[in-house]
Amino acid sequence: MATSKDILTVELGSRSYPILIGQGLLGDPQSFTETVHASDVLIVSNTTVAPLYLSTLEAALRPRRTVATLLPDGESYKTLGTVTRILDVLVANRFGRDSVIVALGGGVVGDMAGFAAAIYQRGVAFVQVPTTLLAQVDSAVGGKTGVNHPGGKNLIGAFHQPAAVVADTATLATLAPRELRAGLAEVVKYGLIRDAAFFAWLEQQAEALLAGEPEALAHVIRRSCQIKAAIVGRDEREHGERALLNLGHTFGHAIESATGYGRWLHGEAVGAGMVMAARMSHASGLMPQDDLRRLVGLIERLGLPVNIPNVAAEDLLEHMRIDKKVLGGRIRLVLLRGIGAAFVTAEYEPDLLRRTLEGHLADL
Amino acid sequence: MATSKDILTVELGSRSYPILIGQGLLGDPQSFTETVHASDVLIVSNTTVAPLYLSTLEAALRPRRTVATLLPDGESYKTLGTVTRILDVLVANRFGRDSVIVALGGGVVGDMAGFAAAIYQRGVAFVQVPTTLLAQVDSAVGGKTGVNHPGGKNLIGAFHQPAAVVADTATLATLAPRELRAGLAEVVKYGLIRDAAFFAWLEQQAEALLAGEPEALAHVIRRSCQIKAAIVGRDEREHGERALLNLGHTFGHAIESATGYGRWLHGEAVGAGMVMAARMSHASGLMPQDDLRRLVGLIERLGLPVNIPNVAAEDLLEHMRIDKKVLGGRIRLVLLRGIGAAFVTAEYEPDLLRRTLEGHLADL
Repeated sequence: MATSKDILTVELGSRSYPILIGQGLLGDPQSFTETVHASDVLIVSNTTVAPLYLSTLEAALRPRRTVATLLPDGESYKTLGTVTRILDVLVANRFGRDSVIVALGGGVVGDMAGFAAAIYQRGVAFVQVPTTLLAQVDSAVGGKTGVNHPGGKNLIGAFHQPAAVVADTATLATLAPRELRAGLAEVVKYGLIRDAAFFAWLEQQAEALLAGEPEALAHVIRRSCQIKAAIVGRDEREHGERALLNLGHTFGHAIESATGYGRWLHGEAVGAGMVMAARMSHASGLMPQDDLRRLVGLIERLGLPVNIPNVAAEDLLEHMRIDKKVLGGRIRLVLLRGIGAAFVTAEYEPDLLRRTLEGHLADL
Repeated sequence: MATSKDILTVELGSRSYPILIGQGLLGDPQSFTETVHASDVLIVSNTTVAPLYLSTLEAALRPRRTVATLLPDGESYKTLGTVTRILDVLVANRFGRDSVIVALGGGVVGDMAGFAAAIYQRGVAFVQVPTTLLAQVDSAVGGKTGVNHPGGKNLIGAFHQPAAVVADTATLATLAPRELRAGLAEVVKYGLIRDAAFFAWLEQQAEALLAGEPEALAHVIRRSCQIKAAIVGRDEREHGERALLNLGHTFGHAIESATGYGRWLHGEAVGAGMVMAARMSHASGLMPQDDLRRLVGLIERLGLPVNIPNVAAEDLLEHMRIDKKVLGGRIRLVLLRGIGAAFVTAEYEPDLLRRTLEGHLADL
């Protein structure tokens, strides 16, 4: 059974890898022929996704020996303790250094399966099979793996690139509407960072995307992966340009940590975080008022929250201070000169950051 | 206070780093000038080493902010749980991505501090300050970090090169005699792998080394680090030549796991493991009888065990099967064609391995 697909490449020299995008890919043995050479495969999934797709994936991976381990679903389980369970399964099944881990699920599953792959026997190969929009457009690509610490989001982890990303767009048909909306926040991010035309296209297609229109979603995945693959190819370890991809994330991580992991979806927090970054940029005289209006309008039309109820500014600030973007004691932020024009800076009025967190900056 | 020192370099392109070797280096601020640029330093040590050297090291690192965390002493504590404690201290003290971890202690401390550095914020810098002979000649150099799993030695970990290795030979004066002997086993390994002249020198100097004669020990550290640095520089990730450094280790790890971590010192297990590898090599018609005699003689003169009492061959075999050297289901071993001539192979009589483990192969 051959399926039509797009193939993009993340160019990283000897660690380059393909991103396959198309309908039905996770059930197609050809999706894994080139990249899963191992005879032993551990599939890591969760209790929500596995009933839908695990048996299809297992069939596609035959005749390899597959073992599956299912994690509880949700960001609150993205801990070192859960990764330890994956490692225990690998040891119990005598998996060697030449085995492969396949992540079947959303960002949480991918982050933990990838981290387990990074630290088992000092590194084994892994393949991402993302089943949420957020994972397909963002977290499955680029090799950031890890878990949360009670003190902060993604504080424990490693850079470990996958051997392949297999994005089966058919899985989006079963995605909960709230998860779809959360994924669209990361899509908006790409337009906001460096592609004003893509942002304008999203404004036109918002309703089609929310309705789950396959052609519109396929375009969104392709364009997002193109932008991310290019940036990661130039700056794998985030010494420079890659930091732009954190637009909205320093704010967003603080929201997630301060409210307890799992209450806000990651994409929701990023959406509200981008609005905060834009409001602060506008108040600094950087971002035109019309651009701020357009962003808030699009986030609202996508059904995503733009404000953060019930969190003290001091709480958020405390969580931002331990975020990975802190260097030399200063919190670095991604701010905007307008739609399509993001930049990284630690030069801003500290009081403006506090007022942003207090929600005292108006949209207009 | 300037101290005289030798400087070797591990050549790894942008990740190259110096190995400083000399008396009194850990108390010399200059040892850290070039490599510890951070203002925040976490010192990881243990309850045995800290009372001897922690305050000296802290003084040398001033005016940087130092925080110290002390681990319990011993291989049985080399677990993911102990690494979690290090991570908790980093988070609690708001250490950023630009902080540095300094490992002050033996191989266990270095492996765990290095692994914490590898996975905190997806990687921070670390410096090895090894205080045992084993760590100075072997484990502090080369970037292998990690912890044990109940199912096998060093099964969880990462490659993460230090920014520098500061080997203060004065620390060997306080080393327990058993620890000194265990370190000498790894030294013998270098001669056995690829330097017959060094092996012969060790035969001549065995008594001086056991007596802790500083000049003899300094030579041993320099020569061992030269050999290891050259091999690591050519094969950082152990795709080929570096596997030779595992001589005696597949046997040794099985001894450590099967007897419960901490009963045998790592170096003791490696010493007995090298004897097993040599006996098996001799029984395969590879290693001359005289070379085997010389090895057993040297190991015995160094006061190291050559036999393994009270462990069933099947137990050892079971632990060898999960060791990292297994590929495609076959246990790869480092065997010997003679002193100075080691090679990696999975081609041997399975029955010969079993008889080796049963201790049925005579020395002569």
